[in-house]
Amino acid sequence: MPHLVILYTPQLDRETDMTALCRKLADTMLAARDEAGAPVFPKGGTRVLAYPAAHFAVADGSGDHAFAYFNIRMARGRSGAVHKAVGEALVATAREHLAPVLAQRAVGLTLQVDEGAEVFDGKFGNLHPLFAKA
Amino acid sequence: MPHLVILYTPQLDRETDMTALCRKLADTMLAARDEAGAPVFPKGGTRVLAYPAAHFAVADGSGDHAFAYFNIRMARGRSGAVHKAVGEALVATAREHLAPVLAQRAVGLTLQVDEGAEVFDGKFGNLHPLFAKA
Amino acid sequence: MPHLVILYTPQLDRETDMTALCRKLADTMLAARDEAGAPVFPKGGTRVLAYPAAHFAVADGSGDHAFAYFNIRMARGRSGAVHKAVGEALVATAREHLAPVLAQRAVGLTLQVDEGAEVFDGKFGNLHPLFAKA
Repeated sequence: MPHLVILYTPQLDRETDMTALCRKLADTMLAARDEAGAPVFPKGGTRVLAYPAAHFAVADGSGDHAFAYFNIRMARGRSGAVHKAVGEALVATAREHLAPVLAQRAVGLTLQVDEGAEVFDGKFGNLHPLFAKA
Repeated sequence: MPHLVILYTPQLDRETDMTALCRKLADTMLAARDEAGAPVFPKGGTRVLAYPAAHFAVADGSGDHAFAYFNIRMARGRSGAVHKAVGEALVATAREHLAPVLAQRAVGLTLQVDEGAEVFDGKFGNLHPLFAKA
Repeated sequence: MPHLVILYTPQLDRETDMTALCRKLADTMLAARDEAGAPVFPKGGTRVLAYPAAHFAVADGSGDHAFAYFNIRMARGRSGAVHKAVGEALVATAREHLAPVLAQRAVGLTLQVDEGAEVFDGKFGNLHPLFAKA
């Protein structure tokens, strides 16, 4: 953790560079700092995954409406101030990247921060140690 | 919010029109009314996204079993009666659309309504204002 | 319920058999037993769905890093011991299957067990009766 998942309608793939947006959002996560000035998210645990829908319906179907939903799930225990700062930073990054899209089409954009409520949490990869070494 | 996400096994793409099902489910959401007769969901915030899995396993692998999971995440604060009415209306729409599939194959179908427990919620698109104007 | 969803970066599709991993994870779920020796999960309700991301960013982008997130959502009311046993069994299965990948590349792997907090739950397929008959 954390991960950010983007679910979106596929028109956006023709109108913006979603891979670049993923990178910018990951960089925004890596830049986040808590009240003590420490990184909010571990480098080896930060990832953004984006999924265009195969089928979709938006609003009342009255036009070519697009939509993207950004959901970041982070570990429990951070303060409300950190949640807000992370959410606002990610919104700012996405808004800037998508400004040309917003200027030319109808698109719904929602970003939500969730705290994970998992009852089991297992890490078994080799990315964290890789970055801890660095 | 709200959004409805459908995760399903890809045989269904050959056996039914999933885009049409998304539209019918969105229309069902838009038709939902609360105890006061007001729309449960805002037009500009209603969307359905469907994702066939690239890889899957269902039950014990003893046959060609399909599966679809419907998850609607809605804002907190609605009554249990509204949750139930929304859930039952969506199940009825999906059951009717999928009746020919149900008549000819094994398919698991589950629909769940979740209340979002987000700790940050940002809207930054232009769809809500578009429909508020209408 | 339950379902296990795998969100992952698409390099893994070239390096391992994700369909086989889905099957092994489903078999692991079907083998799980509770304190009384009864199956934790119903055969007709067990499924695994895997989704490679169309776009992604992992860590700081400093190399070809892969990632897979395994999320199992199960019904409420099981004990902490069952959550732990299920989580550990799934991690063991995934770790064994992915050992050749772990030996040759950087990959983050996280598995989390969630209890569903749904406010409506509808089943309307024909898989459960099929397996109840068996």
